[in-house]
Amino acid sequence: MAATTEGAPPLAVPPLAISLGDPAGVGPELFAQAWVGRHEAGLPPFFAVGGAEVLKAAARTRGIDLPVARISLPEEAEAVFARAFPVLGDEDAAVTFGRPEPAGAALALHSLTRAVEVVLSGKAGAIVTGPVAKSKLAEIGFSQPGQTEFLADACGIAHGDAVMMLAGPNLRTVPLTVHVALAQVPALITRALIERKARIVAQALRRDFALSPARIAITGLNPHAGEDGRMGREEIETIAPAIAALAAEGLAVTGPHPADALFAAHERDGFDVALCMYHDQALVPIKTLDFDAGVNVTLGLPIIRTSPDHGTAFSIAGQGVASAGATIAAIRMAGECAARRLLPEISA
Amino acid sequence: MAATTEGAPPLAVPPLAISLGDPAGVGPELFAQAWVGRHEAGLPPFFAVGGAEVLKAAARTRGIDLPVARISLPEEAEAVFARAFPVLGDEDAAVTFGRPEPAGAALALHSLTRAVEVVLSGKAGAIVTGPVAKSKLAEIGFSQPGQTEFLADACGIAHGDAVMMLAGPNLRTVPLTVHVALAQVPALITRALIERKARIVAQALRRDFALSPARIAITGLNPHAGEDGRMGREEIETIAPAIAALAAEGLAVTGPHPADALFAAHERDGFDVALCMYHDQALVPIKTLDFDAGVNVTLGLPIIRTSPDHGTAFSIAGQGVASAGATIAAIRMAGECAARRLLPEISA
Repeated sequence: MAATTEGAPPLAVPPLAISLGDPAGVGPELFAQAWVGRHEAGLPPFFAVGGAEVLKAAARTRGIDLPVARISLPEEAEAVFARAFPVLGDEDAAVTFGRPEPAGAALALHSLTRAVEVVLSGKAGAIVTGPVAKSKLAEIGFSQPGQTEFLADACGIAHGDAVMMLAGPNLRTVPLTVHVALAQVPALITRALIERKARIVAQALRRDFALSPARIAITGLNPHAGEDGRMGREEIETIAPAIAALAAEGLAVTGPHPADALFAAHERDGFDVALCMYHDQALVPIKTLDFDAGVNVTLGLPIIRTSPDHGTAFSIAGQGVASAGATIAAIRMAGECAARRLLPEISA
Repeated sequence: MAATTEGAPPLAVPPLAISLGDPAGVGPELFAQAWVGRHEAGLPPFFAVGGAEVLKAAARTRGIDLPVARISLPEEAEAVFARAFPVLGDEDAAVTFGRPEPAGAALALHSLTRAVEVVLSGKAGAIVTGPVAKSKLAEIGFSQPGQTEFLADACGIAHGDAVMMLAGPNLRTVPLTVHVALAQVPALITRALIERKARIVAQALRRDFALSPARIAITGLNPHAGEDGRMGREEIETIAPAIAALAAEGLAVTGPHPADALFAAHERDGFDVALCMYHDQALVPIKTLDFDAGVNVTLGLPIIRTSPDHGTAFSIAGQGVASAGATIAAIRMAGECAARRLLPEISA
């Protein structure tokens, strides 16, 4: 991975740091599969933090005899990447795939913690996180609701400023509210929330995706975006005023759009990202179109973080059937974003 | 169209009745386009009620010199269908495409009213309705919220027993609640509502789609279907008990399913129809996948009714750009359902 600017020497992206995720889930086998396909997929060098034996065992369940190279410094990853999967440090765990255990959760937490440290130090270009079991992490004292909040804390930013974007080959969406009951959603949709998240999205898409100004389509909350107030007034009282305020700041925002028609093929070309009001409004179209290639990107962090948009999938871990598409896409996207950060920033 | 049973003479489906929809919208031009493509698409004979001049003018905007044959009885439609678009009756209207007028709404209402009468009399096999402008119909005294409720009244059944299903080439969905604000949805989701609509869906899919028992996937209301009550309790308190009751009756129901993953390609083979909690949960996946081929079918009526799943599209009417895909699909589906009604009913 190298990014160049005219007249300047090429700037190298440091290798990407991978946190294993729960060793009993599909994370390790999919990272192993991604390493095997690294040339074909054009992936930049990456290394895992810990779990050398886990990775080898996970690879065997897919018929892969994975060469692993233990490294003690991130800088050693690039030199070995061509011939072996680099693993930073000796932490490891015994694992039965599909059966999460506290020792595995401890390895997942170590891997995440250390990987973030390395990225914050500048020795890694981005973090790609494997899927964890939140309930298992909670049992060993992990206090955040999920990895995204852990990353926000590690970076010293408010949880609300770490914004989840789902990105597939056909579509990018951002849910404005995420893991809350649907009945709570209408009261949570405020002008302030829409404006704050839209600004974070616009800034992150400029810096990390070279989209300037990013065209942000904002959905309505109600059927047909409320149809002039006949089915709900949130569009009139909250969403449209937020859009007007954002447009006045120079953001390329449109809406409120009826969500049902927004994701049709002929509409998707009209925007770079859809800012949606709630979880399923954002995730249904992405997973319907791009189930095996969806990447979860955290916008608003000082570091780059991507993740395959699926869970631990314990029920199929170790069976050789899980698709590595989303994992490969997450690694590729992390590398691309990291390379863009080395370029001079595009002006707004 | 003929359906045969062993040893019995072939049963002929009567021609299908088409209500024009608003003459200033895309309905007439798309019905004209469907007639032009009738052989290629394998469409059964159909006739429009009124609007001969509207149809000819609409066809001209697409470069079609449409032959129209006025008929005075539905029985005359089949004989002329090969050479001309049959039109029942002389009612007509002057029209400027894209500019709805009261006279056009009056024609739309006449066309709908008379088409329903003909279908109820048994002289037509089904009704295919063109898109209307509800606000224009209201101005001339139409008291129902939409065509579906008009049809329910005409058939003497409760509005709640006329159930909208969206059907595309890849997916069928039914929204349990439709044109209400999202904030009202949680309170409207009751065991009684889920069970009543699921039974109507199962019966209609058996009779008109030969799916017996139809595999009905029922979604959750909340993200991840509530995740064991952590994000809402409607799944535990309402949806799961309804599913259990329906299963005990012998219906092939599953769920509550997390909506975000349910519509992925590898999941769609697992069910015949998804019963969804609200408008966008049902319509986002259909329109995302099948925007130009979605059919709106009304289940639970004594007659067969389909409609292209789009509106009047006044902004593009008369410009020759609207896609006839959904209109053609609606006519084809109406014909197929009508043919199935002539066969002995499959037992449950």
